Amino acid sequence: MIVRSRPHWVRLLFVRRGSLLRRILSQQLFVFFLACAVVLAHGELFDWKVTLTSAPFSLMGVALAIFLGFRINTSYDRYWEARKLWGHVLVGARNLARQALTLSGDGSSVHARPFVLGLIAFAATMRNELRGRPAADGLGNLLPAEVLARMPAARSAPNLILLWLGAWLRARREAGELTPMLAQHMEASLDRLAETLGGCERIANTPLPFTYSVILHRSCYLYCMLLPFGLVDSIGWMTPLVVAFVSYTFFALEALSDEIEEPFGTMANDLALDAIVAGVDASLREMLGEIPPPPPRPDAEFILT
Amino acid sequence: MIVRSRPHWVRLLFVRRGSLLRRILSQQLFVFFLACAVVLAHGELFDWKVTLTSAPFSLMGVALAIFLGFRINTSYDRYWEARKLWGHVLVGARNLARQALTLSGDGSSVHARPFVLGLIAFAATMRNELRGRPAADGLGNLLPAEVLARMPAARSAPNLILLWLGAWLRARREAGELTPMLAQHMEASLDRLAETLGGCERIANTPLPFTYSVILHRSCYLYCMLLPFGLVDSIGWMTPLVVAFVSYTFFALEALSDEIEEPFGTMANDLALDAIVAGVDASLREMLGEIPPPPPRPDAEFILT
Amino acid sequence: MIVRSRPHWVRLLFVRRGSLLRRILSQQLFVFFLACAVVLAHGELFDWKVTLTSAPFSLMGVALAIFLGFRINTSYDRYWEARKLWGHVLVGARNLARQALTLSGDGSSVHARPFVLGLIAFAATMRNELRGRPAADGLGNLLPAEVLARMPAARSAPNLILLWLGAWLRARREAGELTPMLAQHMEASLDRLAETLGGCERIANTPLPFTYSVILHRSCYLYCMLLPFGLVDSIGWMTPLVVAFVSYTFFALEALSDEIEEPFGTMANDLALDAIVAGVDASLREMLGEIPPPPPRPDAEFILT
Amino acid sequence: MIVRSRPHWVRLLFVRRGSLLRRILSQQLFVFFLACAVVLAHGELFDWKVTLTSAPFSLMGVALAIFLGFRINTSYDRYWEARKLWGHVLVGARNLARQALTLSGDGSSVHARPFVLGLIAFAATMRNELRGRPAADGLGNLLPAEVLARMPAARSAPNLILLWLGAWLRARREAGELTPMLAQHMEASLDRLAETLGGCERIANTPLPFTYSVILHRSCYLYCMLLPFGLVDSIGWMTPLVVAFVSYTFFALEALSDEIEEPFGTMANDLALDAIVAGVDASLREMLGEIPPPPPRPDAEFILT
Amino acid sequence: MIVRSRPHWVRLLFVRRGSLLRRILSQQLFVFFLACAVVLAHGELFDWKVTLTSAPFSLMGVALAIFLGFRINTSYDRYWEARKLWGHVLVGARNLARQALTLSGDGSSVHARPFVLGLIAFAATMRNELRGRPAADGLGNLLPAEVLARMPAARSAPNLILLWLGAWLRARREAGELTPMLAQHMEASLDRLAETLGGCERIANTPLPFTYSVILHRSCYLYCMLLPFGLVDSIGWMTPLVVAFVSYTFFALEALSDEIEEPFGTMANDLALDAIVAGVDASLREMLGEIPPPPPRPDAEFILT
Repeated sequence: MIVRSRPHWVRLLFVRRGSLLRRILSQQLFVFFLACAVVLAHGELFDWKVTLTSAPFSLMGVALAIFLGFRINTSYDRYWEARKLWGHVLVGARNLARQALTLSGDGSSVHARPFVLGLIAFAATMRNELRGRPAADGLGNLLPAEVLARMPAARSAPNLILLWLGAWLRARREAGELTPMLAQHMEASLDRLAETLGGCERIANTPLPFTYSVILHRSCYLYCMLLPFGLVDSIGWMTPLVVAFVSYTFFALEALSDEIEEPFGTMANDLALDAIVAGVDASLREMLGEIPPPPPRPDAEFILT
Repeated sequence: MIVRSRPHWVRLLFVRRGSLLRRILSQQLFVFFLACAVVLAHGELFDWKVTLTSAPFSLMGVALAIFLGFRINTSYDRYWEARKLWGHVLVGARNLARQALTLSGDGSSVHARPFVLGLIAFAATMRNELRGRPAADGLGNLLPAEVLARMPAARSAPNLILLWLGAWLRARREAGELTPMLAQHMEASLDRLAETLGGCERIANTPLPFTYSVILHRSCYLYCMLLPFGLVDSIGWMTPLVVAFVSYTFFALEALSDEIEEPFGTMANDLALDAIVAGVDASLREMLGEIPPPPPRPDAEFILT
Repeated sequence: MIVRSRPHWVRLLFVRRGSLLRRILSQQLFVFFLACAVVLAHGELFDWKVTLTSAPFSLMGVALAIFLGFRINTSYDRYWEARKLWGHVLVGARNLARQALTLSGDGSSVHARPFVLGLIAFAATMRNELRGRPAADGLGNLLPAEVLARMPAARSAPNLILLWLGAWLRARREAGELTPMLAQHMEASLDRLAETLGGCERIANTPLPFTYSVILHRSCYLYCMLLPFGLVDSIGWMTPLVVAFVSYTFFALEALSDEIEEPFGTMANDLALDAIVAGVDASLREMLGEIPPPPPRPDAEFILT
Repeated sequence: MIVRSRPHWVRLLFVRRGSLLRRILSQQLFVFFLACAVVLAHGELFDWKVTLTSAPFSLMGVALAIFLGFRINTSYDRYWEARKLWGHVLVGARNLARQALTLSGDGSSVHARPFVLGLIAFAATMRNELRGRPAADGLGNLLPAEVLARMPAARSAPNLILLWLGAWLRARREAGELTPMLAQHMEASLDRLAETLGGCERIANTPLPFTYSVILHRSCYLYCMLLPFGLVDSIGWMTPLVVAFVSYTFFALEALSDEIEEPFGTMANDLALDAIVAGVDASLREMLGEIPPPPPRPDAEFILT
Repeated sequence: MIVRSRPHWVRLLFVRRGSLLRRILSQQLFVFFLACAVVLAHGELFDWKVTLTSAPFSLMGVALAIFLGFRINTSYDRYWEARKLWGHVLVGARNLARQALTLSGDGSSVHARPFVLGLIAFAATMRNELRGRPAADGLGNLLPAEVLARMPAARSAPNLILLWLGAWLRARREAGELTPMLAQHMEASLDRLAETLGGCERIANTPLPFTYSVILHRSCYLYCMLLPFGLVDSIGWMTPLVVAFVSYTFFALEALSDEIEEPFGTMANDLALDAIVAGVDASLREMLGEIPPPPPRPDAEFILT
């Protein structure tokens, strides 16, 4: 179930389909041809010589560096926190399934089956909410009819499923199948699932302050558009190459940060929520003693850039 | 319930109403026109040539960079910690509501209703305290009359509500409706709500050491005011543009840090506490089986800068 | 109870009384007049021209930047961790008070009063220990006489108070007023108070490795004393200004880090422990139904630098 | 059991067998000889002078520095988190073994032996899963036959072992050998083992976004290939040395990050999973009163580079 | 019990005995005299002029800066995590002692004395294991004879003590002196002690990947050895001073990182484990009502460098 590293040389030449490079291609080409034009005009704009040297760019680079570093780290933290929360969904669902299968009843899995399927449904609706898909999408026959019926109109469908799972626990406890101690332990596990839900909603609802992106985006653009004037006198026709290099790094970092800072989307570098939900499904069905569906196809295909 | 990303090109041209740009506009214009004056005077001050080159600014930039990086990261950490704490308010309220609805009584929601409404009141008074609004603001009929009466004079209103919620739990326990085990579990959830309250009070009461802002603010100003003298000899009329670029990045970063380091205010980039409280309200009413109010209107409008 | 931000322009001109600026003033003046002397002597020392340019300072600046950044971040982390621990003291005291008032006895506050006052005493002795004040300072009549008598000779007074609070809990439990479940829950809350005590002792007893300060302090001094020789040939009489700027930023950052890395002292930027203890006192007395003392006067006064 | 530091001077001359240096040797040689060729051709390419100076490389260096710093920190965080998780496997197994040996039964270790061996088996299958080895590898006679039989076909073998350990606990509890309170405590310890399993699967399944490596790798290569043209005019035959120095640092950091960002592999700097599993085995057998196998041979041998 | 800050000016002139300066002195002298030789030879090596300028050192400095920053931060994190773990040993021992003294028996300390002494023994053997001292060192009469006898041959002595502490708890529980609830609470505290043990073993057994030190150490050396050639033409006889400055900062930072990254050693900046164990001893004996031994002598003496 583990994705292995690609061989080293592959990294140099290939990128994924739907590549980030294509998203920044127009910006790159614009900056590149601007640099060419500047060289052709010998750094003049309407017959007026733009008197820039490379010194001011060092000064400007300092502020950009701080900002870009902040942006990358913050975006990645959001991405990785979201990944951790989804990891807890898997762990929490496994733990609750194990407890339902071993702590209550006679050890056969028949009794606990609705509860375990409900856990899979929780993961599925949580993905649906975060991706903006209809709440009942992919629930199949995981939930009892009366719960399923409430899904489409629900403001927060996963929260209603937690409420139903809690009611199931109460019924088991009142039937004397669970001691209060064990009921409370499973209740605490439900609390943790609610925490992962709340954490993901927090990340999805609170983007990085918008102004950060604005300041950074403007500064990068302006920097890259001025850069040719500062280099043309000293390096001539190497200007477009250097400008392309610098702008590639800046724009690519910015675009990537943009992509992963909202990790629940469906772009190339976002979280593979469908695969994670399928993993929860497979893991819990295996614990029920059923034959899990085949593992999802690995998602990476390579394509020459 | 998820805010989607704006299209890419929007970021370049638009900023929010009540923009940060306006707050720093006077500083920007001052620095810009100073730079123009310096160019006109050929870097002379009262007929005395100011002999600066760009080299010292690299040295000064190092210290500024460290400081600015520290400031941004620290401010954002405060902002994000505050956001997490409010996320826990939602999660904690949901968990306590679920437990009140499923662990006690006969499963009907009538019994637990006062407790669930009290949780909404907790979130509302917490916002009131952090924003300096009257403690009883927006409590409507969420609390019993005798608790509501104590609110206006309370030193810490949310803490008194927690005390009342604890008393409600004790009454249920003594009436035999809650086993000790479950009572203790809900007591622990109240503890966590008290932690979020204490955490927010800590952030609100302990600003970043004031001296940090003073040192940074002075250094940025002085740097930007000296910069034209260092650039005028080498880049002439491009000086105002470069100075505006550098000062824009510095001042904007500083102003933004200033805004988010006290995240409970009501400026453009502060936390949307009203929306979060409304979310708690909607989520808990849905669990009670009531029809929640319509979701709050998204807060972002765009305006041409 | 929330401290509001000062208006923006105030930051530029004012600093707190007992200012950090005064602490570094002698260092600043020394470096400034040294720079003036260097300019007057045209960079010569005993008729020998010191052949420095600005290039080596870029190289030296790299190492200084790393180090200064590390120092600021680490000092602030210590400061903020200490603040968090004291926040937990408030939260833990509130939680234990709520539980003592609602979980045990008949709901009247008379019964639990000695326990709640003991919590205030815990916070007060913890402050006394961290600030090196006599252990019994400010305990008034918060503790029973036999516990108070042990305070002056105690190695760790707050720990003895925790022991007494634990004994109070045992007496309640043995008297049948607390179920074992609830007794254990409050015991766990005492554990967390012990953790905050241990955490603060750790910060107070383990300064940042001393060698870090030594290396950084020497490097900053040497850098600032050599800097005039490197700048005098290119920028002449602007040298003292630039040197003052650079050394101000370095010395101020260093002095501030020095101040907050031992956050339990009584310097301007250290933690307001007295105010926090007063807050614990007020919050717990309000829960007891008593009228809390008036809130402490805000501590910041401004003075023209 | 503690690995001591090597003497200082050793670090300069020696590196481990299977060294990272060998992996980057071809890249290093390519760049070195390219630099030599550039010097011989006086910076000309097909009789066309490449007009680069060192200034643009400062600008390019800024972006590279941010990126490389991000990459190192992120990779190391993954490595260290993985190490912590495996540390928890050891701690969790010890705690469960202690509880099984002291909380249940008559204190003799015979009764709890299958459970304790099952904990060793959990650690072993977890390593097998992460390294892609057959699930039943090295299980020897640690598991009952019927559990062992399910291993080869299992999707997640360690998870099935946790299920079996949970069933063992239920059997003890139903036999009246464990009070519900203690059963729940051990159940919570099993939860934490499941968390470490889930955490390791998360790290193994979610590589650092692939695009990060691509952008960084390309930028490093391009930078090192252009560098000779920028230096040749000012430092002549020292160019290959400087280029080798810079590219060594860049490529080595990149290769090392590559190695440790997937910490469960078998390269030189990856985690010593076999040693950790052997440590779990030894520690638990000692607690059972058995003579543990001799400690694993330290893995480091030195070899002249 | 709190160590106070030294007066400011002391930092500039004094360092601790066994100073780090002595460890790097030979490296420093080598680089300093190399720089002198380079100046005397006017930058020529065997009559061949080494054509270096300061520009390449800026480029090389970037990579070094990233690396050195990473190294310092990581080493300090290891040091501080180790310190936190030992802080938890003190806190955990105090909590267990308090619970043993107040939760069980008749409140007299006689009954719980062996358990409390066992906690001191745990801290002592943990230090012994981490420092490679004989396991039974300093145990005096802290442990019953039959446990003490197993110490010398133990693979992990502190773990065996935890096993014995757990057995003591079971005996109390089976004798009806502890309710299951309280027994479980103390069991959980033992779990946390086991976690601190496991955490310290993890830090001690997993050094920072060796390759990091190798790359950094080589790069620093090479940089400092090449630096004189790059400076000699522009700053002449100031070269040795600047080189000494830069290499002092680099080597000192590296040596300090080296020292604290294995925080359990006995070098000047390592953790004062003996003092911490003495603190545990004093704190627990005070809780037993015994007169604790006098506090350990503060360890810092100053010596003129």
